[in-house]
Amino acid sequence: MRATRFFISTLKEAPADAEIVSHKLMMRAGMIKRLGSGIYNYMPMGLRVIRKVEKIVREEMDRSGAIEMLMPVVQPAELWQETGRWQKYGAELMRVKDRHGRDFIIQPTSEEAITDVARQEIKSYRQLPLNFYHIQTKFRDERRPRFGLMRGREFTMKDAYSFDRDLDGLKKSYQNMYDAYVRIFNRFGLQFRAVAADNGAIGGTGSHEFHVIAETGEDALVYCPTSDYAANMEAAEALSLFDARQVATQALTKTATPGKAKCEEVAELLNIPLQNTVKSIVLTVETEEKDKVTKQVWLLLIRGDHELNEIKASKVPGLANYRFATEDEIVEHFGTKPGYLGPVNTKLPVKVVADRTVAMMGDFVCGANEEDFHFTGANWGRDVAEPLVADLRNVVAGDPSPDGKGVLAIQRGIEVGHVFQLGTSYSESMKATFLDENGKPQLLQMGCYGIGITRILGAAIEQNFDDKGIIWPTAIAPFEVVICPMGMEKSPAVKEQAEKLYADLMAAGVDVLLDDRDLRPGSMFADWELIGVPHRVVIGDRGLKEGNLEYKGRRDAEASNVAVADMFSFLTAKLQAKSS
Amino acid sequence: MRATRFFISTLKEAPADAEIVSHKLMMRAGMIKRLGSGIYNYMPMGLRVIRKVEKIVREEMDRSGAIEMLMPVVQPAELWQETGRWQKYGAELMRVKDRHGRDFIIQPTSEEAITDVARQEIKSYRQLPLNFYHIQTKFRDERRPRFGLMRGREFTMKDAYSFDRDLDGLKKSYQNMYDAYVRIFNRFGLQFRAVAADNGAIGGTGSHEFHVIAETGEDALVYCPTSDYAANMEAAEALSLFDARQVATQALTKTATPGKAKCEEVAELLNIPLQNTVKSIVLTVETEEKDKVTKQVWLLLIRGDHELNEIKASKVPGLANYRFATEDEIVEHFGTKPGYLGPVNTKLPVKVVADRTVAMMGDFVCGANEEDFHFTGANWGRDVAEPLVADLRNVVAGDPSPDGKGVLAIQRGIEVGHVFQLGTSYSESMKATFLDENGKPQLLQMGCYGIGITRILGAAIEQNFDDKGIIWPTAIAPFEVVICPMGMEKSPAVKEQAEKLYADLMAAGVDVLLDDRDLRPGSMFADWELIGVPHRVVIGDRGLKEGNLEYKGRRDAEASNVAVADMFSFLTAKLQAKSS
Repeated sequence: MRATRFFISTLKEAPADAEIVSHKLMMRAGMIKRLGSGIYNYMPMGLRVIRKVEKIVREEMDRSGAIEMLMPVVQPAELWQETGRWQKYGAELMRVKDRHGRDFIIQPTSEEAITDVARQEIKSYRQLPLNFYHIQTKFRDERRPRFGLMRGREFTMKDAYSFDRDLDGLKKSYQNMYDAYVRIFNRFGLQFRAVAADNGAIGGTGSHEFHVIAETGEDALVYCPTSDYAANMEAAEALSLFDARQVATQALTKTATPGKAKCEEVAELLNIPLQNTVKSIVLTVETEEKDKVTKQVWLLLIRGDHELNEIKASKVPGLANYRFATEDEIVEHFGTKPGYLGPVNTKLPVKVVADRTVAMMGDFVCGANEEDFHFTGANWGRDVAEPLVADLRNVVAGDPSPDGKGVLAIQRGIEVGHVFQLGTSYSESMKATFLDENGKPQLLQMGCYGIGITRILGAAIEQNFDDKGIIWPTAIAPFEVVICPMGMEKSPAVKEQAEKLYADLMAAGVDVLLDDRDLRPGSMFADWELIGVPHRVVIGDRGLKEGNLEYKGRRDAEASNVAVADMFSFLTAKLQAKSS
Repeated sequence: MRATRFFISTLKEAPADAEIVSHKLMMRAGMIKRLGSGIYNYMPMGLRVIRKVEKIVREEMDRSGAIEMLMPVVQPAELWQETGRWQKYGAELMRVKDRHGRDFIIQPTSEEAITDVARQEIKSYRQLPLNFYHIQTKFRDERRPRFGLMRGREFTMKDAYSFDRDLDGLKKSYQNMYDAYVRIFNRFGLQFRAVAADNGAIGGTGSHEFHVIAETGEDALVYCPTSDYAANMEAAEALSLFDARQVATQALTKTATPGKAKCEEVAELLNIPLQNTVKSIVLTVETEEKDKVTKQVWLLLIRGDHELNEIKASKVPGLANYRFATEDEIVEHFGTKPGYLGPVNTKLPVKVVADRTVAMMGDFVCGANEEDFHFTGANWGRDVAEPLVADLRNVVAGDPSPDGKGVLAIQRGIEVGHVFQLGTSYSESMKATFLDENGKPQLLQMGCYGIGITRILGAAIEQNFDDKGIIWPTAIAPFEVVICPMGMEKSPAVKEQAEKLYADLMAAGVDVLLDDRDLRPGSMFADWELIGVPHRVVIGDRGLKEGNLEYKGRRDAEASNVAVADMFSFLTAKLQAKSS
């Protein structure tokens, strides 16, 4: 490609609404252009990256045996009513009426559409396994779209759906997709991590998220550097920090802690480690039976230095539909306001659940259910009945790994892929069955597998940038090589050399751009450093006189001279090394 | 591709709602699957054709210098309000509100979005010309979607938009696109015709439609077999059939024609040629000025054997906003009801416009403005004032070509592409300007250029099918070659030969499918004839014993034997011939 035949439009400043680095750099590099809130034009430079991402995804999906098709953007509401998602999905689902007043949705995902295809097309076990995928525009009406392509409303997703005759088949299809995803993210040239995620319906390891590692990532990834354990914060199991119950050595003592409502304040006042304190969290569950609403209040206990994991809380039997208690409910049950609550002597009975670590603590400090007072020396069994025990907290770095093979570390990531065992949830509600060997109808076992195509761009940049701009991995760079001739219009030697290298690289299938805009070197270099092309060749009269061209990798601190005759093989060797 | 790794699903019968052959065959061949009214899943077999169509379009657009980008499906209403299309577009424009109640549209086309990009990005004449295109999902909420991909609601379109500094530039960009379209349709391997279409705003030949020729086509294409004249029915100029006014030889005579309201009936009763009669059409134009509505009644005259062209009528000065007159209006102005109207002795004055041919007629027959009576021997100047003269009628086969180089013929076509000189209509309403050499802002001259990607599939089939199924041109066939081994599982010789030919063709870059489903020959052949793969190789034990494989082109009446050793070169030669 010649720059003068292409559209290059860079900006010195990012627009004010761009908050994160990937959004700023994509706007400045002219890769995207805002059309509306969370809705972007993919400009020519950005589209090239998207196409490269799509190509890698497509090749690996095809290699995995998945079959490409294309489902519509606009889908009839009836299908979504069958599965109940029409009712459940909420405001993120973009709903639209046609001229006849019929309801449609703009697809955020395609489980319903593909299950509709499957229930018509899959008749026999002989057709299974099957895996269909498409790369299509999606729409989610985010409450607050922001961060450019990271949380847009319209975006491109690859979504695949597998169909199997039984759970064993599903597990094989799932592993097949997992392996394809590993190949895909490796080919992107991005640092990534697959972490186990929780999937309520199926349980176990029926779900993994693929994250691009980036300090700016929204998600905390938990992993064990000395084993292959990895999970997201919801799925990472927090073991007890004690093997056995700590022995009671103190008497239960009510201690004045005026105005000290937080564990940190109490620990400071009493001059004890924060780890000796216990935090109280009050939840309410309302159940409706025969038009009568029953209310149950729960007390969850977490060590003072730990954090409640709300997803884990929802998995405690009976807590599936909890909400945080109101102050009135708290006063009613504990006789005092938040900050001084504890499991000892509650005003009304409450269900107590202790985090695994709290359940092993002795001589702990908790609220005395009286304003401005805490208990010290509280002990299970003696001062308060044995609690229910559950994993309630977020793990922290240094926690023991659940696999017993080391301690946990935490890093930040950006979720860009998800593989998920759906089981029969969709096939059941949509009656998607096949006939088994005995001619009996059986529900299809389904899996779903997504990759956020456009989100990859944002994530790749969050991982790879410097103060000059983007640093694309070669595999998804808009161009692999840029040739920058200095004074091309004035110097026939420069022009000839530039054209020759350009022609040679083109002939070798290299995705090269010749910058024939005849700009000043400074502007030209700034553009390509901002845009992030990984390999740059500068051709100038001075170098040519010495028989040299100048090469600079986007991450290199300094440019280096390469003999004119060697540059082609130098570059192709660089590119080869990257792609192998 | 191996059939067992692909998804093949054919039907013996087309669903009842499939009215036309392309819709029937695409459903039966498993290329599309209905998701909702006018909304289709593109199944794997159909998607392969779409991708080939897209690839050809993309390659030729790139070659033309157009630059690919991607504009969103969901677009803010504000842009459409700027151009007034929000108000004007009507029910075909799918409108949607987001969670905050803001208005959006699902794009039927992207003039507004691209003009929004242009007004921000194009600053100087130095950046021009520019041509952006995208291949994107479109939605038009058709009142009555039908005919499969021919009149669907969701479809894929390539739309390009050119930006120039002046009309000369626009004309060059337009011709460039016209030439690209000719290359594209040639590469598809389809018979097509580009016809001049009318574009009111710019006039002249500022618009062409590209039609795939098919007897079932909705549009009549007018062309001159002995010249390069071609136009659609609206744009095809109808010359007078007489060089000079026919001489008056008869007296004006009122003749009883009881119950004969139609020209055909009058001609039969009077035993004269239909060509001697004149048809009267009454139109009304209402103009509102200072809250007062003025009504003007017009009488349009067409020869009895001709048809009014409503678009041409609207171009007569003063008739832009006409409607057909009501019966009350007709009785008020002519004193009688339709069927007996004419220009002689109207009750109230009306504006008379005669078609060019009618204006040259003498001794013609027309209504007498009295029920059950006609005049014979009517003549201009003598019996009725000279009329306004205009081209009002559809041309018919045999009419003189407007270029004077022969006579016109008519064939049917399916519109699949359109190139159009927009001029400054969008840049004016959206204030899209650039600075010229003198630093003065000038309006961008725009052109727009569409190709209905998914419609191409329907049109190609309407042109190429037989009683067995589809006959794809090789360039856009889902597979170029299918290998059908007979009893592959039983015969090692057949399997070996099939695998070898498959591997050789794959290595040569041929898009080949190996049908390893081990079906009975009849089912296998029926599938591939229905699906329409252009080249078929059958491998069987009997042929192998004689050293032969069997080849059949999809259009061939009989299969022919080709020596095993020659089949590869035989096929590649066939494919070469097609693509050159």
